Order: sequence, then structure tokens, then C-alpha cells
Amino acid sequence: MNPAVSAKIDDYFETQRERVDRELDQVLPGEDTDPASVHRAMRYSVFAAGKRLRPILCLESGNLLGAEERPLLRIAAALELIHTYSLIHDDLPAMDNDDFRRGKPTSHRVFGEAVAILAGDGLLTLAFEIIAAPGPIPAERQLRLTNDLAQAVGTRGMVGGQVVDLETTGSSTDPARLEFIHARKTGAFIRASVRAGALAAGSSESDLGRVSCYGEKMGLAFQIADDLLDVLGSRERMGKAVHKDGAHRKPTYPALYGIEESQRIARRLANQACEALTCYGGRADRLVQIADFLITRQF
Amino acid sequence: MNPAVSAKIDDYFETQRERVDRELDQVLPGEDTDPASVHRAMRYSVFAAGKRLRPILCLESGNLLGAEERPLLRIAAALELIHTYSLIHDDLPAMDNDDFRRGKPTSHRVFGEAVAILAGDGLLTLAFEIIAAPGPIPAERQLRLTNDLAQAVGTRGMVGGQVVDLETTGSSTDPARLEFIHARKTGAFIRASVRAGALAAGSSESDLGRVSCYGEKMGLAFQIADDLLDVLGSRERMGKAVHKDGAHRKPTYPALYGIEESQRIARRLANQACEALTCYGGRADRLVQIADFLITRQF
Repeated sequence: MNPAVSAKIDDYFETQRERVDRELDQVLPGEDTDPASVHRAMRYSVFAAGKRLRPILCLESGNLLGAEERPLLRIAAALELIHTYSLIHDDLPAMDNDDFRRGKPTSHRVFGEAVAILAGDGLLTLAFEIIAAPGPIPAERQLRLTNDLAQAVGTRGMVGGQVVDLETTGSSTDPARLEFIHARKTGAFIRASVRAGALAAGSSESDLGRVSCYGEKMGLAFQIADDLLDVLGSRERMGKAVHKDGAHRKPTYPALYGIEESQRIARRLANQACEALTCYGGRADRLVQIADFLITRQF
Repeated sequence: MNPAVSAKIDDYFETQRERVDRELDQVLPGEDTDPASVHRAMRYSVFAAGKRLRPILCLESGNLLGAEERPLLRIAAALELIHTYSLIHDDLPAMDNDDFRRGKPTSHRVFGEAVAILAGDGLLTLAFEIIAAPGPIPAERQLRLTNDLAQAVGTRGMVGGQVVDLETTGSSTDPARLEFIHARKTGAFIRASVRAGALAAGSSESDLGRVSCYGEKMGLAFQIADDLLDVLGSRERMGKAVHKDGAHRKPTYPALYGIEESQRIARRLANQACEALTCYGGRADRLVQIADFLITRQF
């Protein structure tokens, strides 16, 4: 890609990230709100420099299908709250036992395990409070969006993926089980983030089907890219311990298919994701750019 | 109370509990649903013999104000899922570190900490999935109910109460802080359970105000009664460790006011709760009976 074009795209996504961050600042209780410890812990993890991938996917899919800006941004922020809750709980000593995340000590290292667990619980609950808050979107749409999202992040989605991931760590796995884990642990929520934008827009079932297909392929491609970064990345760039997956014998694509084949699979999935949006032509450029960014990113 | 009347009331509430349990069995994924471990853990804690107080409060308030039976029962079941999630997380080693609950080993003792945390997360998420599922209740009502409930169990309600409870344990407290803890940790959710029935019925704001008042007073009375049982109850009856609050220097009403004054406060609150329902006459009998049961119960 032409460097000037690439810089312009980066600027665009930086602007979107800032919009999401301002919205997150609005929806989160202040650091002094009683009880302060849990609200400080919630803000600490939410503002620990994430990519805001899920909110941005929601915004772009909503923009593509004509959703109203203000309520769309609110929903996008709720997605990041859910993502942050999942990271706080995944990092706990009883789970992945991680001391660092995005270059900063993890929540339980700073606030203790009890407050970290409750900060996660509080973020998940706040997300549903926000998504169900009265607003300009017709109630039927909001309700379907809430139900859709809860399905994606529950035990038949993200939480279930984390369970199987933990149970599979340290033992060998087969391709079907690995895809099961990735599709649930990361894929279901990324798919739901793209769908959230479409549902907020009140899109037709065929539009919803297309962006769901994009989200599903993208979700899997993203997780494979993440596995690859763990093997190829450096601690400085990633801000967390790398080469951990191998040391813990986590089930990953590079471990099962090797690096080059994993790269090919990720590229193929990203292409399939973008093909699902062909009928929108240039209007889907942002979503195509995100797919491209995700499989070429170095951090 | 006449023993024959009392036995008839017991039969009635036993029937209600059984209805709630059948509904819970329907909404929870089966024990063999992949990943089985987390679904087994969810069912283990949900079916560990609870009183089903929150579902029954929701059913009775909904009945009083004319809610439709089927969707009301679904909402009632969701309340019990949230209650169970809160118990699983509260019992964790990093929190209250309890080995027994309702006479059975706690979730983390049976399934390990990781699965216990994820079972809690899964139950909370499933509750919102169910409450936001498409159904016969108008979407506006369902949405308001979802938002109302999320507020009650988040960091400005139940989760916040648990944070302050943990932070206050072991240090002295004053009456205002104690009421703050109890009103949030138990009161907000009990109030929301009564409100859920009214919101499902699409009740007027004045009806909603009356049952909210009942719920608020009842929530506090219930927690004081619980504190008293910890001092007066026996391990056999309670099925969990008693006299724990004193040993851990938990903030409680008996510790601050003494046993007799605490009993007087609980009775006064229960009376105030029932007075809020005077205008309904005999139609509110079930809710009055629940108030009476809660402050005279021995378990």
C-alpha cells in the first residue's frame, strides 16, 4: 500500500479510537464514585490502550448500513466494556495467570483479586445496562441486539471458548477442536460486534447475513494472526509476555499447522471476509481496510 | 398464625418453587452441552436448594399487577441465575472464601476456581440473554426491565455493595455505612425483583412506586434477618458456616445494634413494607405472607 494512503487510514482509525474513548469516559462511573476502588479498577483496564477493534467494527458496519451515529457509539462503547471484562477475568491467577497486559500490570496485580473479579462483573453488567438504556433506536432492535450479544459472549460463545481453551491447554488437540475454541473464544464476539452495527441500523436479513459472514471469517483470521504474533512478535511491541502459548502448550494454529501455513489460512479467511461485502463496492472500504490491517499488524 | 393456615401457605410457596425450578431446568443448557464442565457447574449451584425468594417476589408482584404468566416465569428464572452467579463469585477464595453453601461444597471446591468464575460469568450472561429474548411482552417493557435490573446488580447496586462489604470487613463501621452496604448488596436486587414483576405487567408509575417501596424495605429487613440467623442459627439448619460474620468482623446489624434492637428494626421494616401495599387489600396477601415468613424464618 502507498505510504501516504496508509498514513491517512491510520489517522482515520485513530480518530475513531478517540471517539470511542470519549464515549467510554462518559459511560463509566467516575474514579471518585463510591465505591471508588472498583470504579478505579474498571477505568484502569478500559483505558489500558486497547485497539478498540470491536467498537470500530460495530461503527463501520453501522455506518455502512445507515445506523444513527449517537446510539451506535454508545453500543460500540458497551462492546469494549465486555471485551475488557473478559480480559480481566482471563488474566486472573486461576485462569491464564498473566501479570502484564498491554504493557501494564494486570488488574489483580494492582487492585487485588477480589476487586479484579468484581470490576469484571461490574463491566459486564454495565454493558447490558447501557445497551438496554432508553434511546432513539426502536426497542425491538435494541432488544434483539442485547439478546444476540449475550448469546455470543455466554457459554455457547466466548465464555465457553475460554473454558475449552483452559481445559485443552497442556494436552494435544486436533484441528476441529482448535477451530471450535477460536470460533467461540474470539470469533463469536467479533462476529457479534459487526452484527451489532447492522442490528442498530435495522438492516435487512440479507445485509445482516453478509456482515455476519464477514465477522465470522474475520474473527477466526484475527485469532490466527494473534497466535502468529505470539510466536513472531517481541515483548516490546506486544506489551505482554510472548512465546507464552508455546511454553504453556496452548492450542494454536502455528503449533498445529506451522507458521507459513497459518499465515496462508489467515490471508484466505480475510479474503473470504471481504468477498462477503463485494456487493457494497467502495462503501465497504473501511471494513476491507480493517481486515487488511488485522492480518498484517505487528502488535 | 393458625398451623393449618401456615401449612397451606407453605404448600403454596412449595408449588411456586417447583414451577421456578422447572423453568430453570428449561433455560439452562444441559449437563452434556459442550463445554460440559461449565454447564455442570452452573446447574450444580442453581439446583443447590435455594429458597427462590427473588423469583417468587417477581411472580407475586407480577400476579398482583396482572402480568402474563409464561413470560413472567421466564423473567423470574433469570433473576435466580443472577442470584446464583453472585453467590458463586462471593464464595471464591479471593472473596468470602466459603467452603460450604446450602449444605453443599461451594462451586470452586467442586469444579476448581477457573470453572467457578466462568460458571458465574455464564449465569449472569445467560440471565440477560433470557430477559432480552423475543417474547410476548412489549419490547419497551422488556428493555426497561433489562436496564432496571442491570442497574440494581451493577457497581451502584449489588456488586458495589459486595466491594464495600469486603473493604469494611475487619474494621469498625457506623450505622450509615452499614445501611449503605445492606441496601446495595442485598436490597437493590430484592427491590429490582419486585419491580421486575411490575414492569413485566406494564404497571402504572404509582403501582411501580408502591411495590418498589415494599421491595426496598423488604430487602433491608431480609438482610438484617440474615445477620440475625448468623448469630442465632445452627449450622445444621443453615447448611453453611454460621457465626462467621462475627469471627471475620463483618459489619452486621446485631454487632452494631444488638440482637433485640435488630429484631425490632427488621419487624418495623417488614411492617412498613406491607403498609406500602395497603391499597391492594387482600390481593397483596402473598407479598404480606412473604414479608412475615422472611423475618420469622429459622433457616
